[in-house]
This record gives sequence, structure tokens and C-alpha cells, in this order.
Amino acid sequence: MSDKTFEKTNLNRVKRMPDRGKYDAETIYPIIDESLICHVGFVDHGRAIVIPTILARDGDKLLLHGSSKSRMMMHIAAGNEISITVTHLDGLVLARSSMHHSMNYRSAVIFGTGTIIDESEAKMRALGIFTDKLIPGRWDDARKPNPIEEKATMICEIDIESASAKIRTGPPGDDDEDYALDVWAGILPMRQIFGDLIEDPLLKDGVQVPKYLEDYKNSRQ
Amino acid sequence: MSDKTFEKTNLNRVKRMPDRGKYDAETIYPIIDESLICHVGFVDHGRAIVIPTILARDGDKLLLHGSSKSRMMMHIAAGNEISITVTHLDGLVLARSSMHHSMNYRSAVIFGTGTIIDESEAKMRALGIFTDKLIPGRWDDARKPNPIEEKATMICEIDIESASAKIRTGPPGDDDEDYALDVWAGILPMRQIFGDLIEDPLLKDGVQVPKYLEDYKNSRQ
Repeated sequence: MSDKTFEKTNLNRVKRMPDRGKYDAETIYPIIDESLICHVGFVDHGRAIVIPTILARDGDKLLLHGSSKSRMMMHIAAGNEISITVTHLDGLVLARSSMHHSMNYRSAVIFGTGTIIDESEAKMRALGIFTDKLIPGRWDDARKPNPIEEKATMICEIDIESASAKIRTGPPGDDDEDYALDVWAGILPMRQIFGDLIEDPLLKDGVQVPKYLEDYKNSRQ
Repeated sequence: MSDKTFEKTNLNRVKRMPDRGKYDAETIYPIIDESLICHVGFVDHGRAIVIPTILARDGDKLLLHGSSKSRMMMHIAAGNEISITVTHLDGLVLARSSMHHSMNYRSAVIFGTGTIIDESEAKMRALGIFTDKLIPGRWDDARKPNPIEEKATMICEIDIESASAKIRTGPPGDDDEDYALDVWAGILPMRQIFGDLIEDPLLKDGVQVPKYLEDYKNSRQ
């Protein structure tokens, strides 16, 4: 894990609830790694466009992919800045007073610019990182991209210019006088789980669920 | 439910995979209602800022709230446009070929501008909508906001200028010749569930978990 810390600037400084702000890669990277998707923000004709998409990390770089015709990929390929936001909702915070209700969450915001990965070997490696981010072990099992497929997809490597995380954990914080109220208070935890595998109706007879997939399914129950 | 359909324009038209695009409120509103959070996008000093926050709906209007000092709320209060994106990840799509891997998802993107809800009765009603969006039934149980708390929070009502949804469901789609491969294919479903309630360590003795909360916990298992 990187021991990098991102400089606090006007861009990444957590302004509301600054005590919830973190700036070290050791906090930020696991938030990225645990999430299968992110929300990419960019300015297009003066508007903020926000696109949900898969996110992968390769050391200190982030990877995004898409069709070479997608507006997001063309925007990044042109060297424009993007933001990447990752959010995990960990629970609902039930306070005694309505106004102190909150959520427990972990979020990360990254700012940066990207460059296209064009060289074939580097591109195949990046495609492998994406596939194994989705389902660890899948890359070696599935049919690998052929040259036509490789060309049709665009991969961008994002240099992290600035990053921060914002985290809330723990019980509600109520006003002193409210602790005497007869209102139940605490946390309703939330988490994302995998359900039971659903076989493709067109699956070839006799093909079994591989062990890496069974293990992965069981890792989030 | 509204029978409204949003006009397809350059702003909301689903450009990539257009067959996944939907423009009717009957599809879009449930995507909003099922999600506790959204990602708000806005342009600040030429940059796309993306903020995760709670979202509620009141008929054909969306509600956002925050501190009156937050950058997002000041931006909306000034009459600037925002985008609101909601994303549900429903499953991982395992194809036989790496390139046909995908995700099943439901996402909605809304563009609009907001106005501040200032009048006290309307504001209290909106605060009730937020509290009951988080935990249905909570508003009548928790201590209601006092005048100071009411003043410290800002609520904006967003007029939906344009909206669309994008949805993927069902099994993978592979190239014809790949169906003969010995690779397991199908769906790994994902969903967000509630865990067991965690009592506040400072909970007053004898306060029981209310029925509406127990029911809500059981609604996402």
C-alpha cells in the first residue's frame, strides 16, 4: 500500500465537517478498491455531467474504460480534467432528534487528468485489471479480447492530481438534553451483498460454477 | 404515480446503448425513490464537483438539503443548474468473453434548477419527507426540529427540466461462436441490505425498538 499523502488544497479540502476529512492513500485507496463503480464528473458545454462507470486502480493510477465513441472517454482523451467520486453507504444513523439523523459512509473524491493507453500489451494488462476487479480470477477463465475488440474499447489511465476521503462512523450525536427522550437511537447498518448465482439459460450443458466465483460470491454475504 | 414523459433532447438522450434509455416518470421515479443517496453534479470555478447526498421526492419535484453554508446549497440557491444521478447496481454480468462482461443496473439522471423553501410550514413538511425517506415512520417518533435547527438547514426544491433512466437487465450477450465455450456464464446478483440494529451505547434504559423500525429493517434482507 502507498504511504502517499495528498496535499490539502482548496480543491480537495473537506470543508463541511472537516474532522471527517482524510488525505492519505492508505485511507483513500481501499475505498476505491472496495467499490465496483464510481461517478465520473466532467464539464461539457458548461454543464456538469455525471456518469456511473466501473473503476479500477493500478498502483497510484486509476483506470477508466469505455467505448472510444463515448463522450466521457473523448473528454478524458482530450486531456480535460475529471473528478471521480466513490461512495459507500454503511448505515443509517438514528438520533433522538430529527435534525441529528445522518448516514455512516465512506466517500473518496479524486481529481485528475488522463491519458489513453494505446500500446497493445499495456492495454491487455489493463483489461485484465478491469475483469479481475469485477470478478477476481475471471480474466484467466474467460475468452480474452481479440484485436478487433481491443481496438473498440478505450482505456484511460488517470493521474491523481488531488484526492480526499470523507468518513462518518459510529453512533448518533444528540443534544445533551435529548438523551433523556424515550426515542430509540442507534445505527441501522447497510451493506451490499451478492445473491445466488443465476445461470445463463443458454449455458452449455455440464459447465460448472468455478471455485473462484463461488468463493467471490461467498465473500459478500 | 405521474404519467409524465420527459422530452428526448440532446441533454437527456441516452447516447451509448440507446435501447437501454427510458424517459417516463413511471420508470424514473421508482429509481429515485428506492435510493437513499444521489450524486449531485455542478460546475464550480470551471470544475465539475460531484457530491453524494440524501435525495427525496415530492411529487414532480426533488428535494435536497444541507447546511446553508455548503457550496452545493449556495450554488443551487443562486439559481444555477445541477445534475442529479442515482445508480443502483443490481448484478455482475459474466459473459463467456471478457469483453462482454457488464453490470446490471438502473440509473437515472435529472437536470434542473432549484429554489429555496423558506416558509416555515413548507420547510417542516419537507424535513418530514427527508426523515421518512431515511426511515419511514421516523418523523412522528423523533424530536422535531426547533426554530434554531430549522434555520440552520437549507432545503431546495428542484424543478426537473429533463430526465432519463438507463437500465440493463438479464443474462449476458455473447458472440455466437462463444456459446460453445466451457466458460460458466450468468449473473451474480447484488443488493443492498440492512443488518441488525446497533443500539446507541447511551440509549436510555428500557427504550424498545419501535415496530416501524423493525419492519423497515426486515424490508431489505
